[in-house]
Amino acid sequence: MSHSLIKEKIDQAVKILNEKDADMWLTFVRESSTAKDPILEIIAGINFTWQSALIINKDGDTTAIVGSIELDNLKNINLYSNVSGYVQSIREPLTDYLKKKNPQKIAINYSQNSVLADGLTHGMYLILKDYLKEIGFEDKLISSEEIISSLRGRKSPAELSIMRDAVKETLRIFNEAGNFIRPGVSEIEIADFIKALAKVDGYELAWDEDHCPAVFTGPDTQGAHSGPTEKKVEKGHLVNIDFGIKYNGYCSDLQRTWYVLKDGEDKAPLDVEIGFSVIRDSIQKVADSLKPGVQGCEMDDIARNFIVKSGYEDFPHGLGHQVGRNVHDGGGGLLPRWERYGNTPYIKVEESQVYTIEPRLKVDGYGTVTMEEEVFITKEGCEFLSKPQKELMLIKG
Amino acid sequence: MSHSLIKEKIDQAVKILNEKDADMWLTFVRESSTAKDPILEIIAGINFTWQSALIINKDGDTTAIVGSIELDNLKNINLYSNVSGYVQSIREPLTDYLKKKNPQKIAINYSQNSVLADGLTHGMYLILKDYLKEIGFEDKLISSEEIISSLRGRKSPAELSIMRDAVKETLRIFNEAGNFIRPGVSEIEIADFIKALAKVDGYELAWDEDHCPAVFTGPDTQGAHSGPTEKKVEKGHLVNIDFGIKYNGYCSDLQRTWYVLKDGEDKAPLDVEIGFSVIRDSIQKVADSLKPGVQGCEMDDIARNFIVKSGYEDFPHGLGHQVGRNVHDGGGGLLPRWERYGNTPYIKVEESQVYTIEPRLKVDGYGTVTMEEEVFITKEGCEFLSKPQKELMLIKG
Repeated sequence: MSHSLIKEKIDQAVKILNEKDADMWLTFVRESSTAKDPILEIIAGINFTWQSALIINKDGDTTAIVGSIELDNLKNINLYSNVSGYVQSIREPLTDYLKKKNPQKIAINYSQNSVLADGLTHGMYLILKDYLKEIGFEDKLISSEEIISSLRGRKSPAELSIMRDAVKETLRIFNEAGNFIRPGVSEIEIADFIKALAKVDGYELAWDEDHCPAVFTGPDTQGAHSGPTEKKVEKGHLVNIDFGIKYNGYCSDLQRTWYVLKDGEDKAPLDVEIGFSVIRDSIQKVADSLKPGVQGCEMDDIARNFIVKSGYEDFPHGLGHQVGRNVHDGGGGLLPRWERYGNTPYIKVEESQVYTIEPRLKVDGYGTVTMEEEVFITKEGCEFLSKPQKELMLIKG
Repeated sequence: MSHSLIKEKIDQAVKILNEKDADMWLTFVRESSTAKDPILEIIAGINFTWQSALIINKDGDTTAIVGSIELDNLKNINLYSNVSGYVQSIREPLTDYLKKKNPQKIAINYSQNSVLADGLTHGMYLILKDYLKEIGFEDKLISSEEIISSLRGRKSPAELSIMRDAVKETLRIFNEAGNFIRPGVSEIEIADFIKALAKVDGYELAWDEDHCPAVFTGPDTQGAHSGPTEKKVEKGHLVNIDFGIKYNGYCSDLQRTWYVLKDGEDKAPLDVEIGFSVIRDSIQKVADSLKPGVQGCEMDDIARNFIVKSGYEDFPHGLGHQVGRNVHDGGGGLLPRWERYGNTPYIKVEESQVYTIEPRLKVDGYGTVTMEEEVFITKEGCEFLSKPQKELMLIKG
C-alpha cells in the first residue's frame, strides 16, 4: 500500500473513532510477518518483530511503541506523530502511555464475526490483559470490529479508482479466456492459460493459485472452492470460471459462464437459457435494492428466494462479500442467516463499500451457471463496477 | 511443503502427543489465507475458508471437519483419515466428534511465549469456547505450545538435508557479495546486488525484502532490523551483512563481516582485529557448550558475559533463535531473561533442532562486527551447518 494511501487511512481512522465515539484503538502485534494482523498493511505497511503497539486516538494523537531495533524503520515511514523504542519489555512504556491518556475504552483487534478485525492472537490477548491488569485497565477492552469494518469498507476515491482498473483488467483476461475454451481442453489447461495471461501483465492472483482461477466444465464438478481438474470441456457443457487479480494491492473477483454448442445447435438448449436468465435476473434484482442502510441478509434473501422459487436448489454459500485489499474484505456481507457467519449478515450496508453478487444454480446434465459482478455502493443505490454478463456466451463446438 | 514432508510431520505429531501424554490437538482456523495459523502449512499445506478443525489424536486418529465447498480439496490432499463437510455451522459436527472422543485435555494453538504456537486468534478462541461450553468441555483447553515447539524444532533427516543446502547456497551468495563490496558502493547497491543473485537462482528471501539483506557499513549505522541506506562504503569501514534465503520452503539466516583497508594498510587495525576475535571466540564458546538439555539463556549468558567482560557494550537482542520453515522458528531460543521473551529463554534445547548464534559488538570509529552461524543439535553436542567465519575478510580499498 502506498505511503499516501496509508496516511489517508490513518486520517480516516481518526474520523471513524470520532463518529463512533471511541477513544482509542490499539493494534498490538509481534513477529507480524509470521502472525499477520490483516490491519497492519493499512495502518503501517511494515512489519514488527518484537511486541509493538500502534495507537490511534480520537483526539488525533497517533503513537507507536516498538522494539528499539525497529525504531529507525518506524521513523522512516513517518506515519505516527509519537514514536518510541524499548529493549527489554514493552510493559512499562505501554502502561505509562495508557495511564497518561486514560481512555474510557480501548478497542483491540478481535472479532468473532470478521476475520479482518480478528488479527490479535489469543496469546497476545493474554499478554495485553496482564499488562492492563497492573494498571486496573483490564475491563476497558472492546472489539475494534466496527472501526475496522468501516475503515476497510469505505473506499476513498483513490482506492475506488484502483478497483475499477482491477475489474477492467480482469474482464479483459476473461475475454481472452473465452477465445481459448473449446472441446478437448481441460480445466487445468484453461486455468494455466489464464494464469499465464495474468503473469504476462505482472498481476498477482487475488487468492490461492490452486483455485485461482477455479474452472468448472460440465455437470458433476467439484465444490466452489476446488481447484481445476483434468476434466475436459465437451460439447453440451456449461463452463464457468471464478477469477480475480491483485492490482496495485487491491483485489478483483468475478465469474463468467459459457455454453459449448453441440453439433447442430446455434443456441443453448432452453433449460440452459432459463437457468442463465434466472441468475442474470437475480443479480439485477439485488442491484435494484442494494443501497446504504439495508442488511446484507435481506439482499441474500432476494436472490436465494428467487432462485429457489424458480425451481432450483439453494446455493450452498453466501450471495456476496466485500472486496478490497483482500478478496473477502470488510465486515458485513450479503450473507444468509447461518451461524457460521456470526453477525455479519445483519450489518448494514454503507456508502462507498464494494460488494460481489454471485449466486449460482445447477442445470441438470449441463453444469453450473454462475456470474459474479462487483458493485460500488453510492449515496442512494449501487453502481456496477463490472459490466454485468447479460447474455450466455456461446462456444462453437 | 511437499506432501511427503507433511505426512512425516503428522506422523511425528502423533508420536509427540504420546511422548507428552496429550490426548488431542485441535487446530481451529477460518479464512486461513488471511488469518494464517503458522502450523497449517506443516499439517495441511492448503487453506480453509470456513471455520475448519484439524484434529490429531494420541491414538493416531486424524480427523478434519471443513466447509462443504472445500471438502474435495481436503479429500485430494489425502492426509486425514476421517474427513467431513458442513454447510451452515461447524458446531454440531465438531461437538459430536469431541463428545465421541471425550479427551481429558484439548491442546489448541495459543501461546504467550511462542508466536508459532499462537495461531489461534482471540475471536476464534471465543467461538470455540462457546461451542465447548455447550458440551461442558470449556475447561479442557490447554496450550499446544510444547507440541508445536517439538514438532517444528525437531528436524527430520529430509528437512535437515534441505537446510544444509540452504546454508550452502547462502554462503555462495555471501562469497560473491564479498567481491562486489568496494569503496563508493552504497548499502542499497550491495543489497540490490545480493537480491539479484538470489533472484537469478529463483530463491525467495528468508524475510521481508526491505531488510533482507540488511547491509551496514561503517560506524553509526541504523538498528539491526533496518533496511540498507544510501550510505557508501569507505576505506576504514567494517561492513556487515545479514541475509538468508528460502530454499524448498526452509530458511537460512547468516551474517558475515568484512573490513575495507585504508591506504597503506595490509591488515585491519588492532582494535578491529580484537573486536572480530571476540565475536568469533564467543560463538565458538557457545558451540562448545550447546547440547540437548541446556537452557537457551545459559548459552546467551556465555556469549553476552564474554563480550561484556572483554569491554564491549551489551548487544540489544538475543544470541540466537531456531530456524526452519520460518526464519524465527520453533519454541525456545538462545535468549536473555528479558520479559518480552516470555518462557522461551528457559526451554531446554532438544536434539535435531537448528539454532543461529549471532552476537555482535561495535568497534568505535569502524562499525559493527557480527557473524551469524547455524548449528544443528546432535545427541551430545552441536555441529556447524555453516562453515564458521574464522578470519576477518579484507577488502582492498
